[in-house]
Amino acid sequence: MTTIVNHEVRLGARPVGLPKRTDWKFTEEPVREPREGEFLVKVSHISLDPAMRGWMNEGKSYIRPVEIGEVMRAGAAGKVMSSKHKDFKEGDLVAGSFGVQEYAISDGKGVRKVDTRFAPLPVYLSTLGMPGMTAYFGLLDIGKPQPGQTVVVSGAAGAVGSVVGQIAKIKGCRAIGIAGGADKCRYLTQELGFDGAIDYKSGDVKEGLKQHCPQGVNVYFDNVGGDILDTVLTRIARGARIVICGAISQYNNTAPVKGPSNYLSLLVNRASMTGMVVFDYTGRYALAAREMAGWIAEGKLKTREDIVEGFDAFPETLLRLFKGENLGKLLIRVAGD
Amino acid sequence: MTTIVNHEVRLGARPVGLPKRTDWKFTEEPVREPREGEFLVKVSHISLDPAMRGWMNEGKSYIRPVEIGEVMRAGAAGKVMSSKHKDFKEGDLVAGSFGVQEYAISDGKGVRKVDTRFAPLPVYLSTLGMPGMTAYFGLLDIGKPQPGQTVVVSGAAGAVGSVVGQIAKIKGCRAIGIAGGADKCRYLTQELGFDGAIDYKSGDVKEGLKQHCPQGVNVYFDNVGGDILDTVLTRIARGARIVICGAISQYNNTAPVKGPSNYLSLLVNRASMTGMVVFDYTGRYALAAREMAGWIAEGKLKTREDIVEGFDAFPETLLRLFKGENLGKLLIRVAGD
Repeated sequence: MTTIVNHEVRLGARPVGLPKRTDWKFTEEPVREPREGEFLVKVSHISLDPAMRGWMNEGKSYIRPVEIGEVMRAGAAGKVMSSKHKDFKEGDLVAGSFGVQEYAISDGKGVRKVDTRFAPLPVYLSTLGMPGMTAYFGLLDIGKPQPGQTVVVSGAAGAVGSVVGQIAKIKGCRAIGIAGGADKCRYLTQELGFDGAIDYKSGDVKEGLKQHCPQGVNVYFDNVGGDILDTVLTRIARGARIVICGAISQYNNTAPVKGPSNYLSLLVNRASMTGMVVFDYTGRYALAAREMAGWIAEGKLKTREDIVEGFDAFPETLLRLFKGENLGKLLIRVAGD
Repeated sequence: MTTIVNHEVRLGARPVGLPKRTDWKFTEEPVREPREGEFLVKVSHISLDPAMRGWMNEGKSYIRPVEIGEVMRAGAAGKVMSSKHKDFKEGDLVAGSFGVQEYAISDGKGVRKVDTRFAPLPVYLSTLGMPGMTAYFGLLDIGKPQPGQTVVVSGAAGAVGSVVGQIAKIKGCRAIGIAGGADKCRYLTQELGFDGAIDYKSGDVKEGLKQHCPQGVNVYFDNVGGDILDTVLTRIARGARIVICGAISQYNNTAPVKGPSNYLSLLVNRASMTGMVVFDYTGRYALAAREMAGWIAEGKLKTREDIVEGFDAFPETLLRLFKGENLGKLLIRVAGD
């Protein structure tokens, strides 16, 4: 084996507010050979997720923070270059938590093999990956939508939200998306089959909810938090379920998080608000992926990846998530692949 | 039948902040005879509940607001004086939503007969009445405590909270109460058998939770909202259930309600926050009351009523709830009874 040089993006400093380029450290070092029970992956696609912002903060959360100097945690996909692991062989396509780097050594923990007969590789970081699993389990296990009910999702044009709305439709619900901008709203209703879309940037979310959800909101899948969560709380139906999946509006706050001041609507409406973390469902990923791959094949579930070329642009590309500039799953394709 | 004069307390104005005496109107008028299907009750005890503050506000809630000029809604108990209703006869003791007045005409809807062999009349407005039912169904149906788990309740020395903690103990849980003042805290641990009490007026609630709930809080029964809810959110265990029963700290706010800014702890801990309204459980009141009467008889469940004499003191007595001055269920005993 000739010496291969790995390029990594490491956390350089804990960001205050939006992460700046100087919060990252670009490093390079030779790739070591895999040991017994390990394999080497050449990464081709890196997943950029809102959750990354939380991983950069110090303190207890659902997962340990990324330490200063550590390679930034990220879902990624690529090809096995060499292996001393019994379950993975050279040439296998794999997805796992390989980090923001060109090469990764893995012991196979949490790694899935990718079968491109069902879907192209990037889809395994998108609808058949963590965002799709988040949508599937959050909506079905926590939201428990019933046919005919109204499901509202925020961040609806993103990787999670777009799948939430489409699964809601598959399950016989009305799906209403909240997204920023006319293009995203058109995408939801015209391409993904949502029943309605509310443009929070140009319109009044409360009026939009009144118009699109005259019977109230039965399930609200929240990716954004902040004012939108607070507004939806005023329009929930009796017995509504609110799935707390994320709060992208609050992740870069330097001020304290804005709590939902209308939370007593939960009492009035005998409603619930429940948090979910996708990693709890790893044991059921394969089943869910199989079902979703079927929906993709039948044309019921559309998947869209927003792929940016080049590893070096990672800091700026990540910010697109927080500016709402992506449409579908945001990925970086590692150059030369 | 000679003419009897009824004294009523009517809502005179929608209060801003704490209800003032001038927000009430004291009226008197002759009592009419019950018609076919009705009966006349002489009220002996009137229940004072935090929820009353919400009923005084305009706007949609879980129950219609009390209108200006209307007799103030209240749970009450008394004796049937005369009846043209087949199910109620003269001399029956009854509890129902008779309002803040000395005499009430009722059609029997929502009225329960009181059997003083099991417990004295006031207990039917307390542990065997709405507050007890709220504690029972909120804790068991929504909170779902498991033996060995830690249950925390705020407003713990109040009518609902004191029952929540005691039922938690009966179900094999650790019960920790949050209350204001050393007397209330002593009452919880020394008289009611709570495992611990946190005095929010003198101590640090967060420190108290750390000390008393080293494994985190599995069930939090919230009667108060505000800062205490926000603090408990930082100490919940994985899979915790938060029961939103009330938010007495917020009822007299003139500023907007303070939302729980730590609500993302629900996500991190895969926890839920669910609202409950006791009126949803009317069909199961009788069963619950029978079980709780059994616990009272066995000495496992203690009930305490804080009875104030005199109808005229209603406006000031109600304020004791919001100042945290009551210990146990706050009732007014109507003079001359």
